[in-house]
Amino acid sequence: MRPSGRAPDQMRAITIEPRYTRHAEGSCLIGFGDTKVLVTASVEERVPPWLRGKGQGWVTAEYGMLPRATHTRGNREAAKGKQSGRTQEIQRLIGRSLRAVTDLKLLGERQITLDCDVIQADGGTRTAAISGAWVALRMAIDGLALEADPIVQQVAAVSCGIHQGTPVLDLDYEEDSAAETDANFVILGDNRMAEVQATAEGACFEEEELLRLLRLARIGCNAIFAEQLKAVGR
Amino acid sequence: MRPSGRAPDQMRAITIEPRYTRHAEGSCLIGFGDTKVLVTASVEERVPPWLRGKGQGWVTAEYGMLPRATHTRGNREAAKGKQSGRTQEIQRLIGRSLRAVTDLKLLGERQITLDCDVIQADGGTRTAAISGAWVALRMAIDGLALEADPIVQQVAAVSCGIHQGTPVLDLDYEEDSAAETDANFVILGDNRMAEVQATAEGACFEEEELLRLLRLARIGCNAIFAEQLKAVGR
Amino acid sequence: MRPSGRAPDQMRAITIEPRYTRHAEGSCLIGFGDTKVLVTASVEERVPPWLRGKGQGWVTAEYGMLPRATHTRGNREAAKGKQSGRTQEIQRLIGRSLRAVTDLKLLGERQITLDCDVIQADGGTRTAAISGAWVALRMAIDGLALEADPIVQQVAAVSCGIHQGTPVLDLDYEEDSAAETDANFVILGDNRMAEVQATAEGACFEEEELLRLLRLARIGCNAIFAEQLKAVGR
Amino acid sequence: MRPSGRAPDQMRAITIEPRYTRHAEGSCLIGFGDTKVLVTASVEERVPPWLRGKGQGWVTAEYGMLPRATHTRGNREAAKGKQSGRTQEIQRLIGRSLRAVTDLKLLGERQITLDCDVIQADGGTRTAAISGAWVALRMAIDGLALEADPIVQQVAAVSCGIHQGTPVLDLDYEEDSAAETDANFVILGDNRMAEVQATAEGACFEEEELLRLLRLARIGCNAIFAEQLKAVGR
Amino acid sequence: MRPSGRAPDQMRAITIEPRYTRHAEGSCLIGFGDTKVLVTASVEERVPPWLRGKGQGWVTAEYGMLPRATHTRGNREAAKGKQSGRTQEIQRLIGRSLRAVTDLKLLGERQITLDCDVIQADGGTRTAAISGAWVALRMAIDGLALEADPIVQQVAAVSCGIHQGTPVLDLDYEEDSAAETDANFVILGDNRMAEVQATAEGACFEEEELLRLLRLARIGCNAIFAEQLKAVGR
Amino acid sequence: MRPSGRAPDQMRAITIEPRYTRHAEGSCLIGFGDTKVLVTASVEERVPPWLRGKGQGWVTAEYGMLPRATHTRGNREAAKGKQSGRTQEIQRLIGRSLRAVTDLKLLGERQITLDCDVIQADGGTRTAAISGAWVALRMAIDGLALEADPIVQQVAAVSCGIHQGTPVLDLDYEEDSAAETDANFVILGDNRMAEVQATAEGACFEEEELLRLLRLARIGCNAIFAEQLKAVGR
Repeated sequence: MRPSGRAPDQMRAITIEPRYTRHAEGSCLIGFGDTKVLVTASVEERVPPWLRGKGQGWVTAEYGMLPRATHTRGNREAAKGKQSGRTQEIQRLIGRSLRAVTDLKLLGERQITLDCDVIQADGGTRTAAISGAWVALRMAIDGLALEADPIVQQVAAVSCGIHQGTPVLDLDYEEDSAAETDANFVILGDNRMAEVQATAEGACFEEEELLRLLRLARIGCNAIFAEQLKAVGR
Repeated sequence: MRPSGRAPDQMRAITIEPRYTRHAEGSCLIGFGDTKVLVTASVEERVPPWLRGKGQGWVTAEYGMLPRATHTRGNREAAKGKQSGRTQEIQRLIGRSLRAVTDLKLLGERQITLDCDVIQADGGTRTAAISGAWVALRMAIDGLALEADPIVQQVAAVSCGIHQGTPVLDLDYEEDSAAETDANFVILGDNRMAEVQATAEGACFEEEELLRLLRLARIGCNAIFAEQLKAVGR
Repeated sequence: MRPSGRAPDQMRAITIEPRYTRHAEGSCLIGFGDTKVLVTASVEERVPPWLRGKGQGWVTAEYGMLPRATHTRGNREAAKGKQSGRTQEIQRLIGRSLRAVTDLKLLGERQITLDCDVIQADGGTRTAAISGAWVALRMAIDGLALEADPIVQQVAAVSCGIHQGTPVLDLDYEEDSAAETDANFVILGDNRMAEVQATAEGACFEEEELLRLLRLARIGCNAIFAEQLKAVGR
Repeated sequence: MRPSGRAPDQMRAITIEPRYTRHAEGSCLIGFGDTKVLVTASVEERVPPWLRGKGQGWVTAEYGMLPRATHTRGNREAAKGKQSGRTQEIQRLIGRSLRAVTDLKLLGERQITLDCDVIQADGGTRTAAISGAWVALRMAIDGLALEADPIVQQVAAVSCGIHQGTPVLDLDYEEDSAAETDANFVILGDNRMAEVQATAEGACFEEEELLRLLRLARIGCNAIFAEQLKAVGR
Repeated sequence: MRPSGRAPDQMRAITIEPRYTRHAEGSCLIGFGDTKVLVTASVEERVPPWLRGKGQGWVTAEYGMLPRATHTRGNREAAKGKQSGRTQEIQRLIGRSLRAVTDLKLLGERQITLDCDVIQADGGTRTAAISGAWVALRMAIDGLALEADPIVQQVAAVSCGIHQGTPVLDLDYEEDSAAETDANFVILGDNRMAEVQATAEGACFEEEELLRLLRLARIGCNAIFAEQLKAVGR
Repeated sequence: MRPSGRAPDQMRAITIEPRYTRHAEGSCLIGFGDTKVLVTASVEERVPPWLRGKGQGWVTAEYGMLPRATHTRGNREAAKGKQSGRTQEIQRLIGRSLRAVTDLKLLGERQITLDCDVIQADGGTRTAAISGAWVALRMAIDGLALEADPIVQQVAAVSCGIHQGTPVLDLDYEEDSAAETDANFVILGDNRMAEVQATAEGACFEEEELLRLLRLARIGCNAIFAEQLKAVGR
């Protein structure tokens, strides 16, 4: 029995509120249950120095957590003067995941920055961020009215884990803290994967377990894909 | 005529959504028109080192702006590795304003941190933050169920300015960018002031003008006081 | 009775020693009693990147305090690796105050930096810095021999406060530490104001009190104006 | 055909030179072909603050790359004043991998730090670091002569990838730069996994491809296990 | 002929103004010609953590240069967020030089910090700082009224160099910029040396040249010793 | 009697392993007994901004110590976020020493960076670094096949000190920790000196003692010169 009473293959409620802020070219507030992440996509008509003149664009991400998004208040990274290793690891993952579905040549010489700020955390913030980032990116690129669409696929992400010996989908904070193994899957609309990160927390895992987690992740991502399309009106 | 069509003494719509997040002891999303600030109050049963054993508590504030809260994306302070002078100045102001209405001895040896994060900016973010911080602080202190109430007054803040020669209440971004003089008033429920900060931006100001701005600020703060009470259910 | 025996509307001795250092285009050592601030004005024939090609100049300020300017030694900001919020707030105030009396178009595409370093502190360092900065700026601009004078007014600043219930002019450290309300006024030669910053330290203040502090500040600034003119030989 | 002429399931030469430095409690220079990593294990009889009094120890890792370990010189992280996101991600991975095979209770209240410094880089530095860290840790713990052995398994790591459509084992720099998919596997002596990180670089991957990479990784890790045992004389 | 017209073995005017600031336990403004350094000695009744309980004190130094002490304005180190290598090298030298004449056991468990801030620079700032630091230290220790005097000797420093082939004493900025060899000597009242730092700038130097520079340094330090004694009234 | 049993004028074994790494244009692992420093020379076809267009090149150095090069583990400077004063002082010394023997005009508009990383420390790391840096620089410049050789001399360095009253050559860690005076000499192939740094650690020194240390340093450097030539095959 999961602490939340969910079935092992049951996602939390997925909510996507598009156009959550006014200024960004694309934005949404995405929720996986009590986890809430605000994602904005900002388009700039310039690329990083190392890409200038190469005839292609760039998609990148930044991630942050409001100090009291969590059960107990954490230090503000701006006040500490540096981003933690965890923050950097997550924003690199988000950036790679969105670039995996973007044709940077078709995007042209512009940069889209996906800012993912966790308003409230209850496990799975990085996977919610990736899933919401696709929505914000889709909206921002729609606004550019390009001739050829640089987005080649949908992308979504979900965490799975082995909790008290049972593989379960979409870990909440309580499960995440106690899981023996924790895995994040970034999956494309055509079933291929952009990223798999499986980590033993309390006990190492067998190949078969990894595959069962992947099966669950596919179930979760399919549900997210449907909500993404609704949010962008497709 | 103001760009927004408002009368000179007309506030923007004041909206306060209490209990906006789950984990914080107090929280609200406060809006002055399109300016939206999320304020959380976090209670910790310890005080800063320099207050230990002095038999009193502390109230402090931190302020941040999401990178795309503004019309064009700003750099993330956590990524730059330091908070700007503006950020530090604002969070010091918020902290002083709330301490001005708190009896720190009655609070006891605990610290309350008010995190004010701007979700969307359209002028007046620091005054919205102060006004919302009172709500979050009120809720957090209510939750402590102390014998004697450490909050001795309401406090609210509003910006006023001289725009095209006319003193106006509650500047939005468009007015703020063009105002000749810009002033922030932090006012208590008993009409006294905790802070006045008036700054010439394009033209210096006369004593009489300062007083007219103060008259407008009183109108604005009275409206905010009413919304604060509704939000905390008093 | 004030700790120093001064009358409520009595400034400390104002001393301005012009040309205190050799290399700067303008400089002075300004004293308000035991508060001593060395101000230098440095002219550079370039403007910050965001002003290039706009046909105007810039005036900016930096502020520092020698570690043992104070009663007990403070940490050196260069060694700590960052400027405090207080330092940044003060140097922003100094810069705004001097820009309020400078026609940046007439200055032309050059930058003048006002370095204000506190040699000895006894209250009122920021107001002494502003008052001395006008002298250094005046000397530096005189040296440029421009066709039209970019300095449109004198500017001076002084702190006032309510100490043991009495409004008093030009707080020294002992008064400043105990004042109920502390206010800094930046006033122009034509009586208008560039900046008012009034802060409740121990007790909030009434409108009438603010006005009485302003009256005192006008007395103090008039005395400073006279010393400034003597220092620059006008 | 691989650039190096190796067969798809062929590791580069694995070399482990134990006791490479005098002062560390355990150390080795590990080579995967031209990739050379110096690993030292330092034992300290204290634990991080958050573990004090919990009756357990800690194993952690730090990673660095000499500026000219690579084809072109990189900036020295100490001179830049911060560790890159990549560095932090790698040292977190190394630490987790070694903790996965250590019983921290049996280790007792002491900390072992594994410093992994890349002397020469040719792809696979993080997997060589993990594999060498086990040797250094083994030697350091042997030196402690504890009653019960806290090391519960061997651990090794290797990178695999899909290069020009072919799954290959142990990518060198030339392959790594061009691989469509890049995966790092951290595998235990009993065949279970501590970590899987698979990333699409140029093309996303199928489940079947992930499994083929895992098969290759098992081949590589078995070869590393044998060399580790030789190095520690078991 | 030296640019200043001085004879090769001629010091610039040495001026020492003791008790230049009010708050410090010892202080002076020392001048070597146009080089002016303010030195304060601050006594604190505690020692650094690594000396606690060892029954001895500590003498340390910090060095800074006001941004416009020099011909053209330099960046403020506090604003840059770090002290340069040059600054750190100089403050380490000053600290060592003063510790060389202090019996730290007799000082007792207290720390004296010598802050050396360059008000105006014209070559030789570090040697003026060392020479002035002895005066400030002497005054601070006199104020402690200890039973046994921890200061065991006088110490002074001066720079010498080879300028256009001629060994000269006490380089000013113009000579320093052009010198082939530049050397700093820290000499004690009993003729022994605490530190010699000789550096080839444009041409390497012979043993005989080093000795001739040392002869000049002795002349300079003897003159400084006399002024030090006058300043402290001995 | 020295702790190591060496005669007062006896160097430790000097070992130089050229071409220790593959990627650098020049490299060696130099050993003075148990002190081991890896030096690489990296050639870049650009100069620092302040040298652009001046028709000359630049030689610079960086220095680092692996955290466990020493008896007890030190903190990693990259993790602390800054280089210590000691590190900066050493790398400035190495850079100056190598520039003293390089004709920067003949080098042309390119920069050579000498990275000196201490693998194992037992006293004398900076002098080993300088001595090894000449070898790496020589190899890198040979590889450039310039028409005129920019290296005008050999350069080597060694530390000497007064240990238990006896002047000794090439201090190891045990002697270095206890020496009364410690001196580093940077000497050229033609007997001239590029740098002398003599520091009293426990007792100040006489002129005669300085000269005796210099005599020892000449003996040591002559031995190093011979090994350098062997290493570069001349």
